[in-house]
Amino acid sequence: MTDRLPDTVAWRGELEGHLELLDQTLLPHTVEVLQLRDVAAVIDAIRRLCVRGAPAIGVAAGYGLVLGVRERRPLPNALRDCAREVAALLLAARPTAVNLQWALDRCLAALGEEPTLARLFAEACAIHADEEAMSRSIGEHGKALIRPGATVLTHCNAGRLATAGDGTALAPMFAAWRDGVRFRVFADETRPLLQGARLTALELHREGIPVQLLADGAGAGLIARGEVSLVIVGADRIARNGDFANKVGTYPLALACAAHRVPFYCAAPVSTFDMSLANGRLIPIEERDATELTTLAGRRIAPAGVGARNPAFDVTPHGLVTGFVTDVGVLQPPFDAAVKRSRVPGR
Amino acid sequence: MTDRLPDTVAWRGELEGHLELLDQTLLPHTVEVLQLRDVAAVIDAIRRLCVRGAPAIGVAAGYGLVLGVRERRPLPNALRDCAREVAALLLAARPTAVNLQWALDRCLAALGEEPTLARLFAEACAIHADEEAMSRSIGEHGKALIRPGATVLTHCNAGRLATAGDGTALAPMFAAWRDGVRFRVFADETRPLLQGARLTALELHREGIPVQLLADGAGAGLIARGEVSLVIVGADRIARNGDFANKVGTYPLALACAAHRVPFYCAAPVSTFDMSLANGRLIPIEERDATELTTLAGRRIAPAGVGARNPAFDVTPHGLVTGFVTDVGVLQPPFDAAVKRSRVPGR
Repeated sequence: MTDRLPDTVAWRGELEGHLELLDQTLLPHTVEVLQLRDVAAVIDAIRRLCVRGAPAIGVAAGYGLVLGVRERRPLPNALRDCAREVAALLLAARPTAVNLQWALDRCLAALGEEPTLARLFAEACAIHADEEAMSRSIGEHGKALIRPGATVLTHCNAGRLATAGDGTALAPMFAAWRDGVRFRVFADETRPLLQGARLTALELHREGIPVQLLADGAGAGLIARGEVSLVIVGADRIARNGDFANKVGTYPLALACAAHRVPFYCAAPVSTFDMSLANGRLIPIEERDATELTTLAGRRIAPAGVGARNPAFDVTPHGLVTGFVTDVGVLQPPFDAAVKRSRVPGR
Repeated sequence: MTDRLPDTVAWRGELEGHLELLDQTLLPHTVEVLQLRDVAAVIDAIRRLCVRGAPAIGVAAGYGLVLGVRERRPLPNALRDCAREVAALLLAARPTAVNLQWALDRCLAALGEEPTLARLFAEACAIHADEEAMSRSIGEHGKALIRPGATVLTHCNAGRLATAGDGTALAPMFAAWRDGVRFRVFADETRPLLQGARLTALELHREGIPVQLLADGAGAGLIARGEVSLVIVGADRIARNGDFANKVGTYPLALACAAHRVPFYCAAPVSTFDMSLANGRLIPIEERDATELTTLAGRRIAPAGVGARNPAFDVTPHGLVTGFVTDVGVLQPPFDAAVKRSRVPGR
């Protein structure tokens, strides 16, 4: 099957065009593209998680800002204030999304001395292009890690559906596949929200890449039995020493890889490095609502009265990481030089 | 909450009595006890998984044999053949359940030279009593491992709902709790069939033991953060060197415990040791149907066309096991002496 998915985020036409978002709330069973022509619709889509993943949200917000200013038709001398107002509305849609803030700030900064809608639009397009280039670079730097006949294991979703390009952990897979390398993938289903089952499996399958789901507990046993060639995962934040936080369930995979000498890679843009944190113990771990575990598809699965601990992330120590596949190459700590060289404007 | 569950398996009355089974297909939301007065009902209950777990199935089968012979009213000289016929019917209900075969063989052997229904009933009761004693012994030998204020992590269900007593991995918890030790438990939900969420959480909660669910990938991170005092799991089969097979997801917990010096115990009766297998690589690993992962509560969660690898077990190497909590004490390999001393008749 090679019935590729529509773009996660796309702008159609020029300054008078509109935004398209793949509605991720309906995946994997229904593939529907939202046509958004005003900022209220973009805010609603961000709030309802029709678009998710930090890079994808950032790109959508940039275009949302263009739509919001365009519909308000401000006079030139009121354009900056108008843009600030619209940005505040967009930011309130998901206040903890760091990339949302970053993308909006970057657009506002681009207005410069003579604010115009065209400048805003150009900057939104530039953010989009930068994110696509980031994914492409990760893919190019990482694709050689995947040999013909390999079995790659990944966890959660760090693919096209989370970014404006080929993703992070999945980017080397898409790049290798395009080069004609044939391999297969084990995708952890990734409880509680099943991003692996719903999203990663869909992306790979639509590209024609053979993919099988695994229960989150099954990877270690398959690694022990020699059935996995390498593991590639994404990262939510990487500390200065290389310890990194990713979706809960990543750390036990790294332990199993270390025990059986299977390469374990973390794929992420350099913008994911947080050089202000000396090590992984300093990364805050979000605890999410127990209902994500006690209910499933709206039905309660746990006995009445039983709750859950639901940390969203775990921390993998740098010593277990074979390499960091980034947009500037496959790195090892220390990262200072690479981070300094590549920092994108304003991030 | 201390609204204890009914017995998993119980015989009510004497030779003219009946079998009661807690219907596990309705758990955790509905607690209903089946009253079984003929062998057809017992066969149906075993086949529909109303009763599950090797020891519980064995006990139910012994009583089922009594019911089947009783309703057929054979003459004394036809009783043995009648019992064999009924046993064959029961065995066909779940042909791969080793304990089913073992319990039926034990009942048939007990008929001796002068077969009577009373002898059959006495042996069924003896099997039941032996299983209860086994759980009690595991509990007594293991309870000292749980200190006041401890947090115990367990995986899958190895409790009352799988046995005729307090279970294996859960038996030390029930025994410690009865002694007034206060602690809490993290129960892995245990995908794909959610035995932890549905059964372990229910058993502990009904006993009043504080329990919280975890996603299967979350344990390692909590172990790393010092939030787990010890791990106790059951076993499906233990090789001569101490490598053991248990529900998939056990091995990564053992790796995390070893990395952070957290005690990791395997609790199982001595009957679980398979001295014919030199090590864990020789333990066959059942691969179950992909639909257990691709669907949930009857609804498809994976994209159409995507399958799964679904190994039911993984193997934990003996080097990661702090001790084996058995009905004859807390053991370390080699197990030969303990196994020889304790072998129950015919097993």
